[in-house]
Amino acid sequence: MPYELYYWDGLQGRGEFIRLALEDAGADYIDIAREDGPERGIDAMMKVLKSKSERHLPFAPPFLKDGDMIISHVANILFYLGPKLNLAPSDENQRIFANGLQLTITDFVAEVHDTHHPIATTQYYEDQKEAAKLRSKDFIEHRMPKFLDYFERVLHRNPDGKAHTIGKSLSYVDISLFQIFEGLRYAFPRATANLAKDYPALQALHDTVGNRPNIKAYLRSERRLDFNTSGIFRHYPELDQSA
Amino acid sequence: MPYELYYWDGLQGRGEFIRLALEDAGADYIDIAREDGPERGIDAMMKVLKSKSERHLPFAPPFLKDGDMIISHVANILFYLGPKLNLAPSDENQRIFANGLQLTITDFVAEVHDTHHPIATTQYYEDQKEAAKLRSKDFIEHRMPKFLDYFERVLHRNPDGKAHTIGKSLSYVDISLFQIFEGLRYAFPRATANLAKDYPALQALHDTVGNRPNIKAYLRSERRLDFNTSGIFRHYPELDQSA
Repeated sequence: MPYELYYWDGLQGRGEFIRLALEDAGADYIDIAREDGPERGIDAMMKVLKSKSERHLPFAPPFLKDGDMIISHVANILFYLGPKLNLAPSDENQRIFANGLQLTITDFVAEVHDTHHPIATTQYYEDQKEAAKLRSKDFIEHRMPKFLDYFERVLHRNPDGKAHTIGKSLSYVDISLFQIFEGLRYAFPRATANLAKDYPALQALHDTVGNRPNIKAYLRSERRLDFNTSGIFRHYPELDQSA
Repeated sequence: MPYELYYWDGLQGRGEFIRLALEDAGADYIDIAREDGPERGIDAMMKVLKSKSERHLPFAPPFLKDGDMIISHVANILFYLGPKLNLAPSDENQRIFANGLQLTITDFVAEVHDTHHPIATTQYYEDQKEAAKLRSKDFIEHRMPKFLDYFERVLHRNPDGKAHTIGKSLSYVDISLFQIFEGLRYAFPRATANLAKDYPALQALHDTVGNRPNIKAYLRSERRLDFNTSGIFRHYPELDQSA
């Protein structure tokens, strides 16, 4: 039975971290909200969110259905899928470490979101633009380097070599870091101009992931939407500045 | 060997979710940064954060040491500790559901933090007060009810009864929801005036947790710091308003 991914159509968003892992593994999955037909489309997703009978009610997309199970939150979905997709360490303690890294990525992504929505998700960007400029400035000057420095150090600290964050094999954490690099470069081209120089191990990891055959095929497919100003990573020139 | 909790001294903060679980279980733990002596105090915490040899480097406090293991992030620490403290469901799929709920609490806590720091964690509240007022208004009108409605529904949806979020027994998620209620009432007394009426199942769960002998003893002890304006939940009257 294929996995069912539930996430908004029209943007990469948080769902993209799940898609990339499923695609890399060549897993059989249905991107429910993006397909037509019965039990498909946004309505099918809203039906679960508003269900009066579902025991494991999700708070928000993305969520994953695997048979009867519903799993919510990106990090939780990846923690659950990791071993099944062969994208997690076999050692249980290492999987806990991977989960901690993914939760740091979760925090980073939330901060990226808040660069354009620092006041209210219920309001348009245009109505919070001045606060967004202030928050983006702080993000570029303090937060982005703090997070990237950390992940660069994690790679250098891996006793099995800096090619991966954990052990000798690719994990879902590595794939998520690829997406972080992609997203930051789209949203903040000026601030990220020196990323390759400043974060060589992250850059190398990004290239490793981007060159994996299934990822390459996915990125060229229609399933990979372009970044746009509906997603988490948004390019508004007025929020960007040199690092 | 006792667990070692690493978190800032002087505030409840995110560390409190871990403390409450450890205290409820009567677990043997050392609150490293709050104690004096060799390998104690804030310096001992900073030493781990700045370590050049630690493999499993944390991004930020809180983190937990269990023997050689370092576990980062509140939800990850509770996921790890849950079964050991008898505060998690025995069923693996239910533990994944618990983790999803805890991650929703994580997001809620991050939004509470951003009510007083919507622009920059590196700046004082006073320097972002106007943005904080806007964000708090949105939080009180939209976000707080959205999260609380969700958890109230989760309680009502539990096939084993609304006394607990998962199954028939207390879990770390229940304990975290107790702390959410406590924190919201301190930070936003006007906005939370009708919490008991609007969220009866959450209120009952709060009371159940608060009446557990170990929790009661902890709350009366010197180990439980008062809420203050250094923590996640901060009371600034100008940010509060009737719901």
